[in-house]
Amino acid sequence: MRRVAVLGVGVTKFGKHDRTSGELFAEAAVEALADAGIEPRQVQALYYGNVVGGETEKQLHTGPQAASILGIPGVPTTRIETACASSHAAFRHAVMEIGAGVSDVVLVGGGERVLNVTTEESTEYFAYASDATWEQTLGLTFPGVFALIARAHMTKYGTTEEQMAAVAVKNHHHGTLNPKAQFQKEITVEQVMRSPKVADPLKLYDCCPFSDGGAAVVLVSEDIARGRRRAIWVLSSAAASDFMLLGDKRDLSRVPATERAAAAAYRDAGCGPEDVDVATEGLGLFEAGTGGVAAEKGWTSLGGKVPVNPSGGLKAKGHPIGATGAAQVAEIVTQLRGEAGPRQVDGARTGLVHTLGGNTATVCVSLLGRE
Amino acid sequence: MRRVAVLGVGVTKFGKHDRTSGELFAEAAVEALADAGIEPRQVQALYYGNVVGGETEKQLHTGPQAASILGIPGVPTTRIETACASSHAAFRHAVMEIGAGVSDVVLVGGGERVLNVTTEESTEYFAYASDATWEQTLGLTFPGVFALIARAHMTKYGTTEEQMAAVAVKNHHHGTLNPKAQFQKEITVEQVMRSPKVADPLKLYDCCPFSDGGAAVVLVSEDIARGRRRAIWVLSSAAASDFMLLGDKRDLSRVPATERAAAAAYRDAGCGPEDVDVATEGLGLFEAGTGGVAAEKGWTSLGGKVPVNPSGGLKAKGHPIGATGAAQVAEIVTQLRGEAGPRQVDGARTGLVHTLGGNTATVCVSLLGRE
Repeated sequence: MRRVAVLGVGVTKFGKHDRTSGELFAEAAVEALADAGIEPRQVQALYYGNVVGGETEKQLHTGPQAASILGIPGVPTTRIETACASSHAAFRHAVMEIGAGVSDVVLVGGGERVLNVTTEESTEYFAYASDATWEQTLGLTFPGVFALIARAHMTKYGTTEEQMAAVAVKNHHHGTLNPKAQFQKEITVEQVMRSPKVADPLKLYDCCPFSDGGAAVVLVSEDIARGRRRAIWVLSSAAASDFMLLGDKRDLSRVPATERAAAAAYRDAGCGPEDVDVATEGLGLFEAGTGGVAAEKGWTSLGGKVPVNPSGGLKAKGHPIGATGAAQVAEIVTQLRGEAGPRQVDGARTGLVHTLGGNTATVCVSLLGRE
Repeated sequence: MRRVAVLGVGVTKFGKHDRTSGELFAEAAVEALADAGIEPRQVQALYYGNVVGGETEKQLHTGPQAASILGIPGVPTTRIETACASSHAAFRHAVMEIGAGVSDVVLVGGGERVLNVTTEESTEYFAYASDATWEQTLGLTFPGVFALIARAHMTKYGTTEEQMAAVAVKNHHHGTLNPKAQFQKEITVEQVMRSPKVADPLKLYDCCPFSDGGAAVVLVSEDIARGRRRAIWVLSSAAASDFMLLGDKRDLSRVPATERAAAAAYRDAGCGPEDVDVATEGLGLFEAGTGGVAAEKGWTSLGGKVPVNPSGGLKAKGHPIGATGAAQVAEIVTQLRGEAGPRQVDGARTGLVHTLGGNTATVCVSLLGRE
């Protein structure tokens, strides 16, 4: 495949918006195109992530809608839905389109709007990413999914609730350094521990919020990127899946799809976890089971061994599900360009983006690097 | 890009089923894999089309679910939703993945279940493929969309209701030759003309039914296809978009996205409309405005100049929207292999697949040929 580079990125502020998901995407896309110095008419394809548009906005077929709002109605569009990994999957397929030589300039993005419905409704719609026959019927929703996984990790490795709280504290601190984050306030381990239980052992401050938002990334071929100082190269982009049903998984404390996707991404990029300077999610970076210790000791904080989610992550930056993957790519690109301001990871040259969808059934991992 | 071939196809009977869309897809996929002589464990990726699963089955994240049901939970999956063109778009992206050299064996398919909800509900959910802000609020549903388009064609070209009825009559005749078609009975122009109005000028017998069903296609690289007598080659696969809003389109009697996608597909394949022996939808095959005459004179019937939809088409075969694109590919492959039995188009060597999504805002066109 040909080499592919990111030339521009854009994100909206995450939080509550009184605009459609397509309009939020378009705001981010205008920013990304300007950042790339690419005219809208140069865009040859749009890969678009959106998850619950059918449920919260009565809107399917969001690809051509997003393109129309942006003013490029003629480009082929593809809406991709792989739960929370949707716009990371969109990114991966756009890399393939350019890599295959089909196009030279591809726009990737996503948009999501959920704060126009009640929390009960969005909790139900998000649960559609679990199995309707065997899981939703039991009352399982996503806080429950991740509570089961957290409990398995605690049981197997001795991870503590305080260690998990340290992840939220770290992410809230990072969020204070990100003007586009949904939450921009510090919290303490004690506050997390005292917050109401959502799904034992997860408490309110452990969980990510519901968010509206949009994100976009401009991808180009090597010919176009050459000589552009701010171009960030896609070293690899991989995906893996796993059993849809939680009940089919052998060990809830691990995420086999992450392990497989990461292995493929490292292999394709010709590097390993030791080369990663900044990540949006930790994986292969610490030994299995030591993530709790890593968070507690500050190894994943800004200034630590491998800063994870300097943006504030889904926890504090927010999580507009269809836009999250593209927003993660945008953060890592910003870090690798050295343009992250107060949340800059010093000397970052290689970054990893990891996005998990649904019951850990879809995972995308991409590696990015500066020349 | 590397050359890509279809090695196997499978479809369920279309109609009412008491199974989930994922199960319907899996039935078709088992048939397609057996047809290809490919083991499930050889599949490296799944591209999956599903449209209203969130609405009719409370099921999103249908990619890994479909893979799990089929027993290949580890392969990367991508759910694509471009309204009625979803699994044709899935096909196109799978061609790109193999063309780029990323994979050698890719499964494409789709599944849809809508007959578990009322006609009123499915009519509403299908309307989500039009714009929620500017079109759904006016009460526009898809029979209305196509009624407006039909009226524009009648006004501009003098196309008559009887000519349009001839399309339905032709498709019902073809459907009687297809054991998997939802409708297997002949109808007459008089019956169409007397059937109740759905959206003037379209009557009940002009319109396609709601359908449950699944379809699957196995794609492989040239190395694997070489020497396989029943392999059918993908000559090209293209897509185009158009304005989301009907009100933004300049001339409803034409479909610019079809014209652009077809031009790209012919260009990439190095051929033209004159080379097409069998098609799932007519385009570029007759002069603009003469489609009505072509249907009336039988030019698009089996035995005519260019048989269109020998399967019975969406009208008689049925239209499980997420599965339709893959099912169209399956029909053309079957025709090009000379295995279509009583509905065989004699001597078919080149076939065209055309799928339209939503308010004519997404169109995919692929050309297939035998060696």
